[in-house]
Amino acid sequence: MLEKVSDIGEFGLIRRINDLVNRDGLRSERLSLGIGDDTASFLPRPGYELLVTCDSMVEGRHYLPQHISFMDLGRRAMTINISDIGAMGGTPLYALISLGLRAEMFVRDVEEIYRGFIAELNPFGASIIGGNLTRSGNGMFIDITLLGEVEQGKLVRRSGAKPGDAILVTGYPGQAAAGLRLLLHTPNDASLARHPLVTIYNIPPHRAHLGKAIAQTGFATAMIDTSDGFLGDLGHICEQSKVGAKIWLDKLPTSEAFQKHSHEFTDRPMDLALGGGEDYELLFTVDRGNVDLLNRMKNRFKTKVTHIGEVVEPNEGIAVLDNCGKRYVVGKKGFDHFL
Amino acid sequence: MLEKVSDIGEFGLIRRINDLVNRDGLRSERLSLGIGDDTASFLPRPGYELLVTCDSMVEGRHYLPQHISFMDLGRRAMTINISDIGAMGGTPLYALISLGLRAEMFVRDVEEIYRGFIAELNPFGASIIGGNLTRSGNGMFIDITLLGEVEQGKLVRRSGAKPGDAILVTGYPGQAAAGLRLLLHTPNDASLARHPLVTIYNIPPHRAHLGKAIAQTGFATAMIDTSDGFLGDLGHICEQSKVGAKIWLDKLPTSEAFQKHSHEFTDRPMDLALGGGEDYELLFTVDRGNVDLLNRMKNRFKTKVTHIGEVVEPNEGIAVLDNCGKRYVVGKKGFDHFL
Repeated sequence: MLEKVSDIGEFGLIRRINDLVNRDGLRSERLSLGIGDDTASFLPRPGYELLVTCDSMVEGRHYLPQHISFMDLGRRAMTINISDIGAMGGTPLYALISLGLRAEMFVRDVEEIYRGFIAELNPFGASIIGGNLTRSGNGMFIDITLLGEVEQGKLVRRSGAKPGDAILVTGYPGQAAAGLRLLLHTPNDASLARHPLVTIYNIPPHRAHLGKAIAQTGFATAMIDTSDGFLGDLGHICEQSKVGAKIWLDKLPTSEAFQKHSHEFTDRPMDLALGGGEDYELLFTVDRGNVDLLNRMKNRFKTKVTHIGEVVEPNEGIAVLDNCGKRYVVGKKGFDHFL
Repeated sequence: MLEKVSDIGEFGLIRRINDLVNRDGLRSERLSLGIGDDTASFLPRPGYELLVTCDSMVEGRHYLPQHISFMDLGRRAMTINISDIGAMGGTPLYALISLGLRAEMFVRDVEEIYRGFIAELNPFGASIIGGNLTRSGNGMFIDITLLGEVEQGKLVRRSGAKPGDAILVTGYPGQAAAGLRLLLHTPNDASLARHPLVTIYNIPPHRAHLGKAIAQTGFATAMIDTSDGFLGDLGHICEQSKVGAKIWLDKLPTSEAFQKHSHEFTDRPMDLALGGGEDYELLFTVDRGNVDLLNRMKNRFKTKVTHIGEVVEPNEGIAVLDNCGKRYVVGKKGFDHFL
């Protein structure tokens, strides 16, 4: 008989999670108190700024439980937060996990979620230092707060892009959105679990190591991750930097898997590459003179980095241009939870 | 026509919240980035440890929406977290708010929740620096991460109680639990909204100022807040300090309102005072020689502080003794979300 959360209760589950975190997780020397008191506590590193972000995943809304393992669910929830720290140029340090669980969930599955968290945190020497467990009504939720640090003066904001800057993007935006479309299109196709686009939807790669390296160069003027979709996040940079942007559609990179499969569920695949959210590539701007230097970093990190456009004056707005120089109009920009 | 969340969307709502926080909230000088980037960032104060805690409130589970205003809901959710910082001897600094909302909620009501957060944060000069909005299935949830600071060396843990120490408690544990029973007992009685016990259930006072002062004296050996109920939290101190405890039942303070009304819904009111959770008094231990000094602090903070027992050897366990010295057996200890 598999143990359920209701068999061992809140405090039994806390104990099990605590054991797992102590066994498999890492512990920073600067941590004075981890899980198990009213708060966690740590000594910040002199000369560093602290970064804090939080992000939630709600069952059925941010993930499809029938298509993702509990371990991957944990990895994905943590990745989303790591990506935000990386988009500032920082390194993850400490995570707090707030879970809303159903009483009939198996303890083993909750532990798998934590194994997923730890798998993503350990490469950074980062650790789980606290959290909260509660019973949720119908759907599970995972809410993570992640703290990170960045050397003073190395932080890259959304607000520093200037007209004339080059716009670059890592990887292939739109793959996660394509994976989700595949799942929604043929929900009962079990073979989809191993489909490359579905894998990227379930556990999207983050670019936090590359983000930190970009920040260290000092050449990036603005940076963001593409969680709200390429155009949505470009919009955030433009709004906060008070600039416009010109994007060359034929430069926007698409992966082989995307090229091969996207026509199966859409006749406008570039709308997906431009508008689809939930992948975690970096979108950043640099002074045009430094493009080559940053391009060379793609070799070091084995990640594609593409120069796809330029920052323009604010009155020009945001324009996507096709190879004839004509404006390409996208059906839907970004993702909004409430619209 | 009142605006709904679905009328203005996620980014419209973020803008409104941002405006409200900038207008009514305070901003620390050490904050380099607040709401509006991938993460917030701040410069920690040299010589201070950072504290981090998180706590969730789920509709129908942690609060009864028909009996609490949105403003009070915000106040209560923040109070719960402030209490945890206070129970370490710390001061609140920065909050991140993760909300799960229904699309048909009124924008005005979401703003009221934020006004509640701000009402509790402003007295500390603390501010909201980030968060996340998502659509939730049926029930709303509020998940707060609160950061605080404490001078290095002044942190009070759960784990330092020693046999012979005095056990003290602030205020009147059990009032919030009594308020909840009243609401559940006569759910349609609108006059209950102004009942003193219901008020304490809805917006329980925190003791963070007193907690900091207690920590500053250096005399407290362990401290916790009574969120899981007096006996439940005493159990946490005993477990982590590896000690037992003896509690004198007739010393456990009960308020006038509690004495007057608790018989209306229970024939064992002391079970409620001992076992009921969700109020946020401080339970702490001090070396016996320092009891008087701490007792005198109640005048400074206008809060009752009562010496209610003593720490004993671990093999004696936790015993509640009546005025004949006989063991009093409690029906239910503390609160567990999953049992």
